[in-house]
Amino acid sequence: MNPLALLDVITLNAHYGDALDRFDLAAWQALFLPDAVYRAQARENFDRGLPLAAIYLDGHGMMADRTTGIEKTLVFAPRSTRHVIGLPLLTGEDTARTPFVVVHTVGHEAAEILATGCYHDRIVSTPLGLRLAARTAVYDNALIPNSLVYPL
Amino acid sequence: MNPLALLDVITLNAHYGDALDRFDLAAWQALFLPDAVYRAQARENFDRGLPLAAIYLDGHGMMADRTTGIEKTLVFAPRSTRHVIGLPLLTGEDTARTPFVVVHTVGHEAAEILATGCYHDRIVSTPLGLRLAARTAVYDNALIPNSLVYPL
Amino acid sequence: MNPLALLDVITLNAHYGDALDRFDLAAWQALFLPDAVYRAQARENFDRGLPLAAIYLDGHGMMADRTTGIEKTLVFAPRSTRHVIGLPLLTGEDTARTPFVVVHTVGHEAAEILATGCYHDRIVSTPLGLRLAARTAVYDNALIPNSLVYPL
Repeated sequence: MNPLALLDVITLNAHYGDALDRFDLAAWQALFLPDAVYRAQARENFDRGLPLAAIYLDGHGMMADRTTGIEKTLVFAPRSTRHVIGLPLLTGEDTARTPFVVVHTVGHEAAEILATGCYHDRIVSTPLGLRLAARTAVYDNALIPNSLVYPL
Repeated sequence: MNPLALLDVITLNAHYGDALDRFDLAAWQALFLPDAVYRAQARENFDRGLPLAAIYLDGHGMMADRTTGIEKTLVFAPRSTRHVIGLPLLTGEDTARTPFVVVHTVGHEAAEILATGCYHDRIVSTPLGLRLAARTAVYDNALIPNSLVYPL
Repeated sequence: MNPLALLDVITLNAHYGDALDRFDLAAWQALFLPDAVYRAQARENFDRGLPLAAIYLDGHGMMADRTTGIEKTLVFAPRSTRHVIGLPLLTGEDTARTPFVVVHTVGHEAAEILATGCYHDRIVSTPLGLRLAARTAVYDNALIPNSLVYPL
C-alpha cells in the first residue's frame, strides 16, 4: 500500500465539509466505503476508550437510514452549518487526524460554535479517490441539546 | 487551459485572508483581475439565485472606490479581523469553493464570529500567479448591523 | 538554502496544533530548534514593535520549565482546546505567516473563542523535518484573564 498523500487527504476533507454544509447526505455517504464505520463521540469517552457514542453508523445501510430519518421525519428550524476543517496530520500509512470547528446559524440569530474536535480516520485509496474506512468525529464540548441532528 | 493546482489555490486564499486582516486593501484588490467581480451575498439569496448582494464591486475601479471610502471617510471603532480559511475544493477546471470563518474583535471586547460562509470562485492563471476572475463570498448568517465595512 | 515547501509547512503546523490539543508539551517543544524563541504577543504590541509579550520562552530550557510549571504546579479546571490553523502563507525563503483560531471548552460550558491571531515564523529544515527557529503567536484579542496558561 502506498502511504497517503497529503493533498489527497486535503481534498477528501474538503469534499466532506462541503457535502455536509450543502446538506447533501448522499454525497457525504459516498465518501465512505460501503462497510465503513462513522462515529460522533465525546472526547471524554474517546480518551478513556469507552464505547459510548452520540452517533454510531456501521455501513452505508445505517447511513442511508439516518439520512432518511433526517430528511423525511425530523422537524427543526432552518439552519446553516459551516465546517472549517483544519490542516490534516498524517499519522500512519492509512491514518490521519484532522481538527475541525462547526459553526451553525439558526434563523437570524448570531452564529454560534456548534462543535469543535478532531477527526480520527482510517483512509483507503480507491479508483474514485480516497475514501473513509472509518471516521470518528471526537468532539470537545458538551453539545447543545438536540442539535446533533446531522453528522459532524 | 490547465486545471487549477490545489497548492496554488491554497496560496491564493492565504494571500487573500492575510491582506484583509492586515487591512491592506491594495493587496486584496491585486488578487483580482482588473475586470473581476466581487460580491458578498447572503446564503438565502445565493441559494435562490436572487441578485441582491450586500456588497457588489465590478472591477478594480469600484474596488478602489470602496477602499477610498473605507480609508478616508468611514469612522468606526478600532477592530481586528481574522480570516481562517478552510480547505479549498476544486470543483471544475477554473472553479473552486472554499469555506471561511471571520472572527472579529472590537477594542478590548471578547472575540466574536462576524461571519461564516463559503467563497465561490472563478480563478485564472496569470504570469503573477492565480487571480480571481470572480469571487462571491456567500455568508451563512445574518450579519451584525453595520459591521460589513470591509469585504469578507 | 532551499525555499520552504508549502506541504511541509502545512505538516509542521498540523503537528503543532495536534501536540497542544493533546496537551503533549514535549511534542510541542520538539517542533522548535533547541535555541528557538517562542513568544505570545498582543497584536497592538507587535504592530508597534513593542517588546512586551505575555509569554516569552528563549530555548528548550525555558520551554521545559514552562511545561513543568504547567504540569506539576498549576491548578485549573478541566478544559479542552482546539487549534484550527488556517492556510500558511510563505513570505520568504525561511519565513511564513499562518492564521489561527483557538476554541476552548471548560467543563460542560459552551465552547468559546480563546484567541485568534497569526503565527509569524522563521522555519528551518532539519533531517527530522521542518522546525521552528522562531514563532511569535500574535493574538488579536484581549485574552480571557488567567486563561493563557498553555502556549497558543
